[in-house]
Amino acid sequence: MTFRRKSRKVRVGSIYIGGDAPITVQTMPTSKTTNIKETVDIIKRCEEAGVDIVRLGMPDIESARAIKEIKRHVNVPIVADIHFDYKIALEAIKSGADKIRLNPGNIKEKWKVEEVVRACKDNGIPIRIGVNAGSIDRSKYPSPTPETLVDSAFGHVKILEDLGFFDIVISVKHNDVITMIEAYRMIAKMCDYPLHLGVTEAGTEFKSTIKSAIGIGTLLAEGIGDTIRVSLTGDSVKEVEIGIAILQQFGYKPTYVDIVSCPMCARADVNIIELTNKFEQLTKNMKKKVKVAIMGCVVNGPGESMDADIGVSCGKSGSVVYKGGKLYKRINNDEIIDTLIEELEKV
Amino acid sequence: MTFRRKSRKVRVGSIYIGGDAPITVQTMPTSKTTNIKETVDIIKRCEEAGVDIVRLGMPDIESARAIKEIKRHVNVPIVADIHFDYKIALEAIKSGADKIRLNPGNIKEKWKVEEVVRACKDNGIPIRIGVNAGSIDRSKYPSPTPETLVDSAFGHVKILEDLGFFDIVISVKHNDVITMIEAYRMIAKMCDYPLHLGVTEAGTEFKSTIKSAIGIGTLLAEGIGDTIRVSLTGDSVKEVEIGIAILQQFGYKPTYVDIVSCPMCARADVNIIELTNKFEQLTKNMKKKVKVAIMGCVVNGPGESMDADIGVSCGKSGSVVYKGGKLYKRINNDEIIDTLIEELEKV
Repeated sequence: MTFRRKSRKVRVGSIYIGGDAPITVQTMPTSKTTNIKETVDIIKRCEEAGVDIVRLGMPDIESARAIKEIKRHVNVPIVADIHFDYKIALEAIKSGADKIRLNPGNIKEKWKVEEVVRACKDNGIPIRIGVNAGSIDRSKYPSPTPETLVDSAFGHVKILEDLGFFDIVISVKHNDVITMIEAYRMIAKMCDYPLHLGVTEAGTEFKSTIKSAIGIGTLLAEGIGDTIRVSLTGDSVKEVEIGIAILQQFGYKPTYVDIVSCPMCARADVNIIELTNKFEQLTKNMKKKVKVAIMGCVVNGPGESMDADIGVSCGKSGSVVYKGGKLYKRINNDEIIDTLIEELEKV
Repeated sequence: MTFRRKSRKVRVGSIYIGGDAPITVQTMPTSKTTNIKETVDIIKRCEEAGVDIVRLGMPDIESARAIKEIKRHVNVPIVADIHFDYKIALEAIKSGADKIRLNPGNIKEKWKVEEVVRACKDNGIPIRIGVNAGSIDRSKYPSPTPETLVDSAFGHVKILEDLGFFDIVISVKHNDVITMIEAYRMIAKMCDYPLHLGVTEAGTEFKSTIKSAIGIGTLLAEGIGDTIRVSLTGDSVKEVEIGIAILQQFGYKPTYVDIVSCPMCARADVNIIELTNKFEQLTKNMKKKVKVAIMGCVVNGPGESMDADIGVSCGKSGSVVYKGGKLYKRINNDEIIDTLIEELEKV
């Protein structure tokens, strides 16, 4: 599980994607890029949530120009997302974009692609080829299967490689989790470019959380993936929080106050749901790498509590606190939260 | 991906686990089992959400007796969760439990295990051996690794096999997703008993959704798993909803109104977030197997809309509706929801 697919390393502003670089979390603001105030506000909230890279939609040349001003107010590298117009790409690069997302096959004239590639080379910025079920060339590929997604991606890659450009990141997204997993598995074997993972058009928060966790998680469990983006129809900050939580499960992002808590069943004599929610609320901004167990009975309680840094196993007539794997003290059930917080503060 | 590990089939009341049986979703009420009214209420809400099997905690003999009355009011098979006392197991079987969860190694005297096994045989009910990081025998296994979880499970299995009992389901749960995945991968190769998947003590809803989707999803993507339980510190219905949503991604549960919606970015001229949430709310109880795309721009909009049964690709001056893969009509942006609902009703 510690195995990670070997990929080429590319630089994106102050950070790297691929190779031995930490796996990064990306998002994309829901605002118009030209609405600089709103865009900066969203990026700042995402920075606070821990985002590593932010991508901005570039529907027009004004959006490309806005990058310059936006970059003055934020710290994360900025990716310009371009679709059809090479001039917007050139303008975005001039404005300081740290990476561009562009499928060169969408630009018909070769000299235009050459100009963009030259500008990328001159500025040392990479290009992500982002193939998406919704935007593959339907005249060539009637339906988006793993094979056609991968074939389409390599078509774009070839254009860049023929121009001597190799600072490439690839994504092959689909709204169907299984198709997405298969497409990435396939492309992972066929090249050493870093891969940007994501389930596209994944719907609203509930469904996207599940689709993204399965799709991105299954691939990470196989060592595939260098940067990730959770897509959801909702707040960009949620995308970041979910992305980080996915990476945490693999140890790719640190987990602070990590709560192990039981689902509460007939065996519990204490309201574990209330207790855990309250404790989670109180500690959610605490930046301490501590594992805390909150358990409702003697079946799994002592074991989980001993495996945690601090644990409490609740019973009818009182609770038992464990610390560092050892029985620490017995307390009343109305002292549980205070005791846990007190112990956390000592850490 | 359509490959599924071959497992033995066991019967649980009116349904089956393993073999070619559909993968089932389980949950466990948060109530005291002896609080029959509350327990029945929770089970009924879970049945409405689509649960297949419900497990009840059995901390005492009264809980075992309560099964009889509870079963009068609900339709799903009931599993009795027993830990140390063979008498509770016998009483639960007498009360009509459709399956018991019991680790025979926890019962010291052999004759007591024999009695329970005889009662299971006589009543044709299976036993789940549920090994849990928190409850493995610490005198034998100092820490819960994939190896010790699996070894512990086989210790219990051996006791049953020696008594000629093979109607076994196994789980090897851990709160760490990676350890859990490894443990199930290991045990999947070593036997043909059906596997009950779950990440244990997974915390509150947000984290449990991610942990369960990754853990259970990664294994399902490898063909491993016959029944699943999402554990979360919160409402049992949520466990069912998440479990079903995980299975839907693999086609193991039907997906009704399946919404493919973009995350909305600078390219969108219509508020896709508002639109999608409203549409999702209006259609959440509709039992029609339809894929609907709600997309914010011309980059991915037409492609996704054509791949859906009904799709809308929104633009600044109006939107384009697609039906069955073909352009259907152009509408104003204030007609989007009404048009989609109207088309859905025709299906």
